[in-house]
Amino acid sequence: RINGKRLWASLMELAQIGATPKGGVCRLTLTDLDKQGRDLVTRWAVEAGMTVTIDKIGNGFMRRPGRNNSLPPIMTGSHIDTQPTGGKFDGNYGVLAGIEVVRTLNDLGIETEAPIEVAFWTNEEGSRFVPVMMGSGVFAKAFTLEHAYAATDTEGKTVKGELERIGYIGDQEPGDHPIGAYFETHIEQGPVLEDNDVTIGVVSGVLGIRWFDCTVTGMEAHAGPTPMALRKDAMLAATRIMQDVVAAAHRHPPHGRGTVGMVQVFPNSRNVIPGRVKFSIDLRNSTDALVDQMADEVKAFAAKVAQEHGVDVKIEMVSSYSAIAFHDDCVDAVGRAAKNLGYSHMPAVSGAGHDAVYMAKLAPSGMIFIPCKDGISHNEIEDAKPEHITAGCNVLLHAMLERAKV
Amino acid sequence: RINGKRLWASLMELAQIGATPKGGVCRLTLTDLDKQGRDLVTRWAVEAGMTVTIDKIGNGFMRRPGRNNSLPPIMTGSHIDTQPTGGKFDGNYGVLAGIEVVRTLNDLGIETEAPIEVAFWTNEEGSRFVPVMMGSGVFAKAFTLEHAYAATDTEGKTVKGELERIGYIGDQEPGDHPIGAYFETHIEQGPVLEDNDVTIGVVSGVLGIRWFDCTVTGMEAHAGPTPMALRKDAMLAATRIMQDVVAAAHRHPPHGRGTVGMVQVFPNSRNVIPGRVKFSIDLRNSTDALVDQMADEVKAFAAKVAQEHGVDVKIEMVSSYSAIAFHDDCVDAVGRAAKNLGYSHMPAVSGAGHDAVYMAKLAPSGMIFIPCKDGISHNEIEDAKPEHITAGCNVLLHAMLERAKV
Ligand SMILES: NC(=O)NCCC(=O)O
Ligand SMILES: NC(=O)NCCC(=O)O
Repeated sequence: RINGKRLWASLMELAQIGATPKGGVCRLTLTDLDKQGRDLVTRWAVEAGMTVTIDKIGNGFMRRPGRNNSLPPIMTGSHIDTQPTGGKFDGNYGVLAGIEVVRTLNDLGIETEAPIEVAFWTNEEGSRFVPVMMGSGVFAKAFTLEHAYAATDTEGKTVKGELERIGYIGDQEPGDHPIGAYFETHIEQGPVLEDNDVTIGVVSGVLGIRWFDCTVTGMEAHAGPTPMALRKDAMLAATRIMQDVVAAAHRHPPHGRGTVGMVQVFPNSRNVIPGRVKFSIDLRNSTDALVDQMADEVKAFAAKVAQEHGVDVKIEMVSSYSAIAFHDDCVDAVGRAAKNLGYSHMPAVSGAGHDAVYMAKLAPSGMIFIPCKDGISHNEIEDAKPEHITAGCNVLLHAMLERAKV
Repeated sequence: RINGKRLWASLMELAQIGATPKGGVCRLTLTDLDKQGRDLVTRWAVEAGMTVTIDKIGNGFMRRPGRNNSLPPIMTGSHIDTQPTGGKFDGNYGVLAGIEVVRTLNDLGIETEAPIEVAFWTNEEGSRFVPVMMGSGVFAKAFTLEHAYAATDTEGKTVKGELERIGYIGDQEPGDHPIGAYFETHIEQGPVLEDNDVTIGVVSGVLGIRWFDCTVTGMEAHAGPTPMALRKDAMLAATRIMQDVVAAAHRHPPHGRGTVGMVQVFPNSRNVIPGRVKFSIDLRNSTDALVDQMADEVKAFAAKVAQEHGVDVKIEMVSSYSAIAFHDDCVDAVGRAAKNLGYSHMPAVSGAGHDAVYMAKLAPSGMIFIPCKDGISHNEIEDAKPEHITAGCNVLLHAMLERAKV
């Protein structure tokens, strides 16, 4: 069993770097604070006897040798960058749980057949640079290193320039080494485990995601003198499409999700009928076929709304992530570990994208969820219980040992 | 009959001050450009033999004496400030039509019993300083001079400071002189006259207006891992209330208007279920009872939505303007003038607030509408036909002469 107190102390120490007054963390990727976080984590790795290599996109690989170092490593990891108003656990937990696994093996003098690797992936959050899950995406060749390097923040700074500036642009070619298996521990970022009072979520897969921008164009006009019958109210038409985004999720339970998170209204004046409304559509479901079906339904409904309201509607896809089913061996290893350790557990799906999504393309992969308070993340009040932090790390230890062989 | 070419030329000359590349005008109240506009208009008035006085809120009164100067003046006027992306006609037409009436009387050597006054009212638009219709509101004692003086723009500059800076803070006490009757010519700012191919709108009154801010508070959460059943989606709840704002207008024809023009979503992120949505509600109808009924219906519906979605809904009134019925004598004078001049005409209501709303509290008042292209105003592409500009001014001349007596 791992040392829960030590893991918790490390989490709290790392959370000091970029700590916010409300108890959260703001440690945006490739900033000075991110460098400080990386430095601290790699120092801990070295202190635990691990070797550290950095690849060209700044992913860090902290390695504990095995008895047979020609075997591909059993890997775990996550990210240490945060949202602007992020919490202490999202990502950070997955990386420090990996280090705690190694510290525990050291304490107990356990040698593994295959080497153990703990990764921290660059820019999982995507709040400073898009795309999200950048480091693992480059590693899995979902997009090129050049594409990632060229991404700019709002000030025009590039990923490549910032990697160089903080000294985390390595020599290693991303994705150059095979992986035996990949596990990632993460807070659930949702309310299901807490709602069911369960400690461990055995994650079977990740929902497919489609992101769209929808633009409704009507006719800007004065709110007073324009009779209702002569209006082309872009906002009114938009509300109907927005409702169908939510309805589409309800039509495809249990995993359908539909969200309108971002809305811009033009000219956004109290006494002007909106001439244009732009909003985001986030659709998710457990299979790509289901997400695509939801998207088709929303598009068909939008076309009907366009006709009925005399407005123009454009829906453009901006991102797409395939649904992922994790490898049975890894999912079973997580379930067995939870059972053997005596933790309450249940099957879970990940509604959010994670680095494990890309790793699943390269190696048998699995994820371990623990509850977080009120299901809240991407928020300074994000919180998790020490006993759940400990439990998730114990499950990780056992699942990794099963794959790495003692 | 007035000189349409001269009136058109004056309109085009005034529109040079603050002219925008797209053919509109940006001449915000109490700016250097507003001063230039005021200087030009008062120069024209002096050239037409009028005396000019300015009151403490910067309203200008350009007076042509009558035979009996103890009679209260027959007044016309409007405003020369514009929206940031305004047009050449909104307000400006009403002031220059008044000057053209005086020029015509001079040309024809016509003396009137009562004096004629042409007013330009300070800050009708309200885009730089709230409240709208500030000068006429102070004149009619709808609010105090001190209240108006203290209004600040986004840079913290006050109305009083800006009036002093541009030299348009006069000695005259606002509202100190009685008015015999008030007429205002204005572009319709709506599509009804054009739709009916009619030249003159005989305005019977102005719709009552209620402005509200509605805030819906739900629970911010991650769009991926949060199942539909556990959401408190502030945006979804808001769309239902927004739709009822429009529906309330349809439930109370023919003059009901309902508009959501301004929307802000928090945190406004693609993969976060909105925790808070704030939007404006603009309700109008021909009587105060009808507007209040519409507001009550929307509030009752919002309370139902709050319960059904588990969200909190607050609706706060931010402004209220009573419905106005213009004086029969003035409305009839406008109708008679249009008929005698042989112009097509129809009864009209003003959906927008105008300085005439406040003047109607002080004196028998009326308004004359002419069509504007596609009903568009508050837009650089605002346009009106020279023949309609001429017709409206001829109707003004005849209506004023009927009241001022030759
Ligand atoms: N874990 C996480 O927040 N990923 C961001 C992409 C998503 O919205 O799922
Ligand atoms: N004429 C005009 O645009 N007035 C502003 C107030 C309103 O929205 O009616």
